[in-house]
Amino acid sequence: VGTPSVPTAERIREAAIDLFSRNGFHATGVSELAAAAELGVGALYYHIGSKEQLLWEVLRVHIDEAAAAAEAVLESDLAAVEKMRQLVHHHVRIIAAHAREVRIYVRDAEAVTGDRAEVLQAGRERVEDAWRSVFTEGVAQRVLVTDDHVVVNGVLGMLNMLYMWYRPDREDSPDAIADKLCNVILSGIEIA
Amino acid sequence: VGTPSVPTAERIREAAIDLFSRNGFHATGVSELAAAAELGVGALYYHIGSKEQLLWEVLRVHIDEAAAAAEAVLESDLAAVEKMRQLVHHHVRIIAAHAREVRIYVRDAEAVTGDRAEVLQAGRERVEDAWRSVFTEGVAQRVLVTDDHVVVNGVLGMLNMLYMWYRPDREDSPDAIADKLCNVILSGIEIA
Repeated sequence: VGTPSVPTAERIREAAIDLFSRNGFHATGVSELAAAAELGVGALYYHIGSKEQLLWEVLRVHIDEAAAAAEAVLESDLAAVEKMRQLVHHHVRIIAAHAREVRIYVRDAEAVTGDRAEVLQAGRERVEDAWRSVFTEGVAQRVLVTDDHVVVNGVLGMLNMLYMWYRPDREDSPDAIADKLCNVILSGIEIA
Repeated sequence: VGTPSVPTAERIREAAIDLFSRNGFHATGVSELAAAAELGVGALYYHIGSKEQLLWEVLRVHIDEAAAAAEAVLESDLAAVEKMRQLVHHHVRIIAAHAREVRIYVRDAEAVTGDRAEVLQAGRERVEDAWRSVFTEGVAQRVLVTDDHVVVNGVLGMLNMLYMWYRPDREDSPDAIADKLCNVILSGIEIA
Protein backbone atom coordinates (compact mmCIF):
# COMPACT_ATOMS: atom_id res chain seq x y z
CA VAL A 1 0.00 0.00 0.00
CA GLY A 2 0.84 3.67 -0.14
CA THR A 3 1.32 6.11 -2.96
CA PRO A 4 5.08 6.56 -2.92
CA SER A 5 5.00 9.60 -5.19
CA VAL A 6 2.95 11.68 -2.71
CA PRO A 7 4.68 12.49 0.61
CA THR A 8 2.89 11.26 3.74
CA ALA A 9 2.24 14.75 5.12
CA GLU A 10 0.51 15.75 1.88
CA ARG A 11 -1.62 12.62 1.79
CA ILE A 12 -2.74 13.29 5.36
CA ARG A 13 -3.51 16.93 4.62
CA GLU A 14 -5.54 16.09 1.50
CA ALA A 15 -7.46 13.36 3.37
CA ALA A 16 -8.24 15.81 6.20
CA ILE A 17 -9.39 18.59 3.86
CA ASP A 18 -11.54 16.19 1.86
CA LEU A 19 -13.21 14.48 4.83
CA PHE A 20 -13.55 17.52 7.11
CA SER A 21 -15.05 19.63 4.33
CA ARG A 22 -17.51 16.95 3.22
CA ASN A 23 -18.56 15.44 6.54
CA GLY A 24 -17.42 17.91 9.20
CA PHE A 25 -14.66 17.62 11.79
CA HIS A 26 -16.73 15.90 14.47
CA ALA A 27 -18.21 13.25 12.16
CA THR A 28 -14.80 12.31 10.72
CA GLY A 29 -13.14 9.42 12.56
CA VAL A 30 -9.42 8.87 12.93
CA SER A 31 -9.66 5.43 11.33
CA GLU A 32 -11.40 7.01 8.32
CA LEU A 33 -8.62 9.60 8.05
CA ALA A 34 -5.99 6.88 8.29
CA ALA A 35 -7.63 4.83 5.54
CA ALA A 36 -7.92 7.86 3.24
CA ALA A 37 -4.25 8.72 3.84
CA GLU A 38 -3.26 5.06 3.27
CA LEU A 39 -1.79 4.74 6.77
CA GLY A 40 -2.44 2.67 9.86
CA VAL A 41 -4.11 4.46 12.78
CA GLY A 42 -0.90 4.31 14.84
CA ALA A 43 1.18 5.79 12.02
CA LEU A 44 -1.42 8.54 11.51
CA TYR A 45 -1.29 9.49 15.21
CA TYR A 46 2.50 9.51 15.01
CA HIS A 47 2.26 12.13 12.25
CA ILE A 48 -0.61 14.31 13.48
CA GLY A 49 -0.54 14.11 17.31
CA SER A 50 -4.31 14.46 17.53
CA LYS A 51 -7.32 15.11 15.32
CA GLU A 52 -7.59 18.63 16.75
CA GLN A 53 -3.95 19.31 15.90
CA LEU A 54 -4.58 18.13 12.32
CA LEU A 55 -7.57 20.48 12.02
CA TRP A 56 -5.41 23.29 13.38
CA GLU A 57 -2.64 22.56 10.86
CA VAL A 58 -5.08 22.61 7.95
CA LEU A 59 -6.53 25.96 9.00
CA ARG A 60 -3.23 27.54 10.04
CA VAL A 61 -1.60 26.88 6.66
CA HIS A 62 -4.61 28.37 4.87
CA ILE A 63 -4.81 31.51 7.06
CA ASP A 64 -1.03 32.02 6.91
CA GLU A 65 -1.20 31.96 3.11
CA ALA A 66 -3.94 34.62 3.10
CA ALA A 67 -2.05 36.75 5.64
CA ALA A 68 1.26 36.52 3.76
CA ALA A 69 -0.41 37.50 0.49
CA ALA A 70 -2.13 40.53 2.07
CA GLU A 71 1.05 41.65 3.86
CA ALA A 72 3.10 41.39 0.66
CA VAL A 73 0.62 43.73 -1.04
CA LEU A 74 0.65 46.13 1.92
CA GLU A 75 4.47 46.27 1.89
CA SER A 76 4.73 46.83 -1.86
CA ASP A 77 5.38 50.24 -3.43
CA LEU A 78 2.01 50.46 -5.16
CA ALA A 79 -0.46 53.30 -4.70
CA ALA A 80 -3.38 52.55 -2.37
CA VAL A 81 -6.01 51.95 -5.07
CA GLU A 82 -3.71 49.54 -6.88
CA LYS A 83 -2.95 47.80 -3.57
CA MET A 84 -6.70 47.42 -3.06
CA ARG A 85 -7.03 45.79 -6.49
CA GLN A 86 -4.16 43.43 -5.67
CA LEU A 87 -5.67 42.54 -2.27
CA VAL A 88 -8.99 41.66 -3.89
CA HIS A 89 -7.37 39.56 -6.63
CA HIS A 90 -5.09 37.64 -4.25
CA HIS A 91 -7.91 37.02 -1.77
CA VAL A 92 -10.39 35.83 -4.41
CA ARG A 93 -7.77 33.51 -5.89
CA ILE A 94 -7.02 32.03 -2.45
CA ILE A 95 -10.71 31.59 -1.54
CA ALA A 96 -11.48 30.03 -4.93
CA ALA A 97 -8.53 27.63 -4.66
CA HIS A 98 -9.24 26.75 -1.01
CA ALA A 99 -13.04 26.82 -0.75
CA ARG A 100 -12.89 23.53 1.19
CA GLU A 101 -10.62 25.01 3.88
CA VAL A 102 -12.91 28.03 4.23
CA ARG A 103 -15.87 25.68 4.62
CA ILE A 104 -13.99 23.80 7.37
CA TYR A 105 -13.01 27.06 9.02
CA VAL A 106 -16.56 28.46 9.05
CA ARG A 107 -18.07 25.23 10.28
CA ASP A 108 -15.52 23.84 12.73
CA ALA A 109 -12.87 26.41 13.72
CA GLU A 110 -14.48 26.46 17.18
CA ALA A 111 -13.19 22.91 17.72
CA VAL A 112 -9.66 24.37 17.91
CA THR A 113 -9.02 25.54 21.47
CA GLY A 114 -6.40 27.10 23.74
CA ASP A 115 -3.06 28.27 22.33
CA ARG A 116 -3.92 26.86 18.92
CA ALA A 117 -7.08 28.95 18.75
CA GLU A 118 -5.01 32.01 19.60
CA VAL A 119 -2.64 31.27 16.73
CA LEU A 120 -5.59 31.10 14.30
CA GLN A 121 -7.02 34.31 15.75
CA ALA A 122 -3.61 36.01 15.30
CA GLY A 123 -3.54 34.91 11.65
CA ARG A 124 -7.02 36.27 11.03
CA GLU A 125 -5.97 39.56 12.63
CA ARG A 126 -2.91 39.74 10.35
CA VAL A 127 -5.28 39.54 7.35
CA GLU A 128 -7.62 42.19 8.74
CA ASP A 129 -4.75 44.46 9.81
CA ALA A 130 -3.17 44.38 6.36
CA TRP A 131 -6.51 45.18 4.72
CA ARG A 132 -7.29 47.96 7.19
CA SER A 133 -3.83 49.47 6.66
CA VAL A 134 -4.39 49.66 2.90
CA PHE A 135 -7.74 51.38 3.48
CA THR A 136 -6.02 53.81 5.88
CA GLU A 137 -3.26 54.54 3.35
CA GLY A 138 -5.97 55.26 0.79
CA VAL A 139 -7.67 57.73 3.11
CA ALA A 140 -4.31 59.41 3.86
CA GLN A 141 -3.60 59.66 0.12
CA ARG A 142 -7.11 61.13 -0.34
CA VAL A 143 -8.07 58.46 -2.86
CA LEU A 144 -10.41 56.38 -0.65
CA VAL A 145 -13.33 57.75 1.35
CA THR A 146 -13.22 55.50 4.43
CA ASP A 147 -11.29 53.02 6.53
CA ASP A 148 -14.27 52.29 8.81
CA HIS A 149 -13.93 48.74 10.15
CA VAL A 150 -17.55 48.02 9.16
CA VAL A 151 -16.54 48.60 5.55
CA VAL A 152 -13.31 46.58 5.88
CA ASN A 153 -15.26 43.68 7.43
CA GLY A 154 -17.99 44.03 4.80
CA VAL A 155 -15.51 43.85 1.91
CA LEU A 156 -13.70 40.84 3.41
CA GLY A 157 -17.07 39.17 4.03
CA MET A 158 -18.09 39.74 0.41
CA LEU A 159 -14.96 37.92 -0.74
CA ASN A 160 -14.93 35.18 1.91
CA MET A 161 -18.52 34.15 1.09
CA LEU A 162 -17.37 33.13 -2.38
CA TYR A 163 -16.64 29.72 -0.88
CA MET A 164 -20.41 29.13 -0.71
CA TRP A 165 -21.38 29.99 -4.26
CA TYR A 166 -18.24 29.79 -6.42
CA ARG A 167 -18.28 26.83 -8.81
CA PRO A 168 -15.05 26.50 -10.83
CA ASP A 169 -16.87 24.68 -13.62
CA ARG A 170 -19.69 27.20 -14.08
CA GLU A 171 -18.32 30.59 -13.05
CA ASP A 172 -15.97 33.18 -14.41
CA SER A 173 -12.30 32.74 -13.54
CA PRO A 174 -11.23 33.97 -10.09
CA ASP A 175 -9.59 37.01 -11.68
CA ALA A 176 -12.74 37.88 -13.66
CA ILE A 177 -14.77 37.63 -10.44
CA ALA A 178 -12.18 39.74 -8.61
CA ASP A 179 -12.45 42.42 -11.32
CA LYS A 180 -16.24 42.58 -11.02
CA LEU A 181 -16.23 42.75 -7.22
CA CYS A 182 -13.34 45.21 -7.18
CA ASN A 183 -15.31 47.51 -9.47
CA VAL A 184 -18.25 47.42 -7.04
CA ILE A 185 -15.99 48.12 -4.07
CA LEU A 186 -14.11 50.98 -5.73
CA SER A 187 -16.78 52.56 -7.91
CA GLY A 188 -20.12 51.26 -6.61
CA ILE A 189 -23.03 50.29 -8.82
CA GLU A 190 -25.00 53.54 -8.98
CA ILE A 191 -24.71 55.67 -12.10
CA ALA A 192 -23.58 59.03 -10.73
CA VAL B 1 -42.09 22.71 35.88
CA GLY B 2 -42.82 24.70 32.74
CA THR B 3 -42.97 28.40 32.03
CA PRO B 4 -46.69 28.88 31.47
CA SER B 5 -46.27 32.36 30.01
CA VAL B 6 -44.16 31.11 27.05
CA PRO B 7 -45.97 28.78 24.61
CA THR B 8 -44.41 25.34 24.17
CA ALA B 9 -43.55 25.86 20.49
CA GLU B 10 -41.63 29.02 21.35
CA ARG B 11 -39.73 27.36 24.17
CA ILE B 12 -38.73 24.53 21.84
CA ARG B 13 -37.64 26.94 19.12
CA GLU B 14 -35.54 29.04 21.52
CA ALA B 15 -33.93 25.92 23.00
CA ALA B 16 -33.08 24.66 19.49
CA ILE B 17 -31.63 27.99 18.33
CA ASP B 18 -29.58 28.32 21.51
CA LEU B 19 -28.18 24.77 21.54
CA PHE B 20 -27.71 24.31 17.78
CA SER B 21 -25.93 27.68 17.44
CA ARG B 22 -23.62 27.08 20.42
CA ASN B 23 -22.84 23.37 20.08
CA GLY B 24 -23.91 22.42 16.56
CA PHE B 25 -26.81 20.27 15.37
CA HIS B 26 -24.98 16.94 15.58
CA ALA B 27 -23.62 17.47 19.09
CA THR B 28 -27.03 18.49 20.48
CA GLY B 29 -28.98 15.58 21.96
CA VAL B 30 -32.77 15.28 22.08
CA SER B 31 -32.71 14.90 25.88
CA GLU B 32 -30.73 18.15 26.12
CA LEU B 33 -33.27 19.91 23.90
CA ALA B 34 -36.11 18.53 26.00
CA ALA B 35 -34.52 19.74 29.25
CA ALA B 36 -33.90 23.21 27.83
CA ALA B 37 -37.51 23.42 26.63
CA GLU B 38 -38.76 22.13 30.01
CA LEU B 39 -40.41 19.08 28.44
CA GLY B 40 -40.08 15.32 28.69
CA VAL B 41 -38.38 13.60 25.73
CA GLY B 42 -41.69 11.99 24.67
CA ALA B 43 -43.50 15.32 24.75
CA LEU B 44 -40.69 16.95 22.74
CA TYR B 45 -40.90 14.25 20.04
CA TYR B 46 -44.67 14.72 19.96
CA HIS B 47 -44.11 18.39 19.13
CA ILE B 48 -41.13 18.22 16.74
CA GLY B 49 -41.41 14.86 14.97
CA SER B 50 -37.62 14.54 14.71
CA LYS B 51 -34.47 16.54 15.42
CA GLU B 52 -33.99 17.05 11.67
CA GLN B 53 -37.53 18.40 11.36
CA LEU B 54 -36.82 20.84 14.21
CA LEU B 55 -33.66 22.06 12.48
CA TRP B 56 -35.64 22.47 9.28
CA GLU B 57 -38.37 24.48 11.06
CA VAL B 58 -35.80 26.82 12.61
CA LEU B 59 -34.13 27.50 9.25
CA ARG B 60 -37.34 27.65 7.23
CA VAL B 61 -38.87 30.36 9.44
CA HIS B 62 -35.68 32.41 9.19
CA ILE B 63 -35.33 32.10 5.40
CA ASP B 64 -39.05 32.78 4.88
CA GLU B 65 -38.71 36.00 6.86
CA ALA B 66 -35.79 37.14 4.71
CA ALA B 67 -37.62 36.18 1.50
CA ALA B 68 -40.86 37.92 2.53
CA ALA B 69 -38.96 41.12 3.41
CA ALA B 70 -37.10 41.14 0.08
CA GLU B 71 -40.25 40.42 -1.94
CA ALA B 72 -42.18 43.20 -0.17
CA VAL B 73 -39.46 45.66 -1.21
CA LEU B 74 -39.43 44.33 -4.78
CA GLU B 75 -43.22 44.71 -5.06
CA SER B 76 -43.27 48.24 -3.63
CA ASP B 77 -43.59 51.36 -5.79
CA LEU B 78 -40.14 52.71 -4.95
CA ALA B 79 -37.48 53.57 -7.53
CA ALA B 80 -34.74 50.96 -7.94
CA VAL B 81 -32.03 52.77 -5.93
CA GLU B 82 -34.44 53.28 -3.04
CA LYS B 83 -35.46 49.61 -3.26
CA MET B 84 -31.79 48.71 -3.03
CA ARG B 85 -31.42 50.80 0.12
CA GLN B 86 -34.49 49.12 1.62
CA LEU B 87 -33.22 45.63 0.71
CA VAL B 88 -29.91 46.32 2.43
CA HIS B 89 -31.56 47.73 5.56
CA HIS B 90 -34.08 44.89 5.90
CA HIS B 91 -31.44 42.24 5.28
CA VAL B 92 -28.93 43.72 7.77
CA ARG B 93 -31.66 44.00 10.41
CA ILE B 94 -32.67 40.36 9.89
CA ILE B 95 -29.07 39.07 9.96
CA ALA B 96 -28.26 41.14 13.07
CA ALA B 97 -31.40 39.92 14.87
CA HIS B 98 -30.92 36.31 13.80
CA ALA B 99 -27.14 35.81 13.76
CA ARG B 100 -27.64 32.50 15.59
CA GLU B 101 -29.91 31.11 12.86
CA VAL B 102 -27.40 32.15 10.19
CA ARG B 103 -24.65 30.38 12.13
CA ILE B 104 -26.80 27.23 12.28
CA TYR B 105 -27.59 27.55 8.58
CA VAL B 106 -23.96 27.94 7.52
CA ARG B 107 -22.75 25.13 9.75
CA ASP B 108 -25.51 22.52 9.57
CA ALA B 109 -28.00 23.18 6.76
CA GLU B 110 -26.54 20.12 5.02
CA ALA B 111 -28.13 17.95 7.73
CA VAL B 112 -31.53 18.80 6.24
CA THR B 113 -32.25 16.38 3.38
CA GLY B 114 -34.84 15.40 0.79
CA ASP B 115 -38.01 17.47 0.36
CA ARG B 116 -37.12 19.63 3.33
CA ALA B 117 -33.79 20.58 1.76
CA GLU B 118 -35.66 21.55 -1.40
CA VAL B 119 -37.94 23.83 0.59
CA LEU B 120 -34.91 25.61 2.10
CA GLN B 121 -33.31 25.88 -1.34
CA ALA B 122 -36.54 27.38 -2.71
CA GLY B 123 -36.56 29.96 0.09
CA ARG B 124 -32.96 30.91 -0.62
CA GLU B 125 -33.82 31.28 -4.30
CA ARG B 126 -36.74 33.58 -3.43
CA VAL B 127 -34.28 35.88 -1.63
CA GLU B 128 -31.79 35.83 -4.51
CA ASP B 129 -34.52 36.29 -7.13
CA ALA B 130 -35.95 39.34 -5.37
CA TRP B 131 -32.50 40.89 -5.09
CA ARG B 132 -31.62 40.10 -8.70
CA SER B 133 -34.92 41.60 -9.87
CA VAL B 134 -34.18 44.88 -8.10
CA PHE B 135 -30.74 45.00 -9.73
CA THR B 136 -32.36 44.30 -13.11
CA GLU B 137 -34.95 47.06 -12.57
CA GLY B 138 -32.08 49.41 -11.77
CA VAL B 139 -30.30 48.53 -15.00
CA ALA B 140 -33.56 48.99 -16.96
CA GLN B 141 -34.08 52.39 -15.30
CA ARG B 142 -30.46 53.27 -16.18
CA VAL B 143 -29.59 54.00 -12.56
CA LEU B 144 -27.51 50.88 -11.81
CA VAL B 145 -24.59 49.62 -13.88
CA THR B 146 -24.99 45.84 -13.53
CA ASP B 147 -27.20 42.94 -12.53
CA ASP B 148 -24.40 40.39 -12.94
CA HIS B 149 -25.06 37.47 -10.59
CA VAL B 150 -21.46 37.67 -9.31
CA VAL B 151 -22.26 41.15 -8.01
CA VAL B 152 -25.65 40.08 -6.58
CA ASN B 153 -23.99 37.14 -4.80
CA GLY B 154 -21.14 39.37 -3.65
CA VAL B 155 -23.49 41.93 -2.12
CA LEU B 156 -25.59 39.27 -0.39
CA GLY B 157 -22.40 37.63 0.89
CA MET B 158 -21.16 40.96 2.29
CA LEU B 159 -24.38 41.28 4.31
CA ASN B 160 -24.74 37.62 5.30
CA MET B 161 -21.22 37.51 6.77
CA LEU B 162 -22.28 40.08 9.35
CA TYR B 163 -23.34 37.13 11.48
CA MET B 164 -19.64 36.38 12.06
CA TRP B 165 -18.44 39.80 13.19
CA TYR B 166 -21.48 41.80 14.31
CA ARG B 167 -21.56 42.33 18.09
CA PRO B 168 -24.73 44.17 19.26
CA ASP B 169 -22.91 45.52 22.33
CA ARG B 170 -19.89 46.94 20.51
CA GLU B 171 -21.04 47.88 17.02
CA ASP B 172 -23.15 50.54 15.38
CA SER B 173 -26.88 49.85 15.14
CA PRO B 174 -28.01 47.59 12.28
CA ASP B 175 -29.33 50.63 10.42
CA ALA B 176 -26.05 52.51 10.81
CA ILE B 177 -24.18 49.46 9.47
CA ALA B 178 -26.68 49.16 6.62
CA ASP B 179 -26.09 52.83 5.70
CA LYS B 180 -22.32 52.36 5.59
CA LEU B 181 -22.46 49.18 3.50
CA CYS B 182 -25.17 50.61 1.24
CA ASN B 183 -22.93 53.59 0.51
CA VAL B 184 -20.11 51.24 -0.52
CA ILE B 185 -22.44 49.21 -2.72
CA LEU B 186 -24.02 52.22 -4.42
CA SER B 187 -21.12 54.68 -4.56
CA GLY B 188 -17.96 52.66 -3.98
CA ILE B 189 -15.06 53.85 -1.87
CA GLU B 190 -12.84 55.48 -4.48
CA ILE B 191 -12.83 59.25 -4.73
CA ALA B 192 -13.76 59.88 -8.36
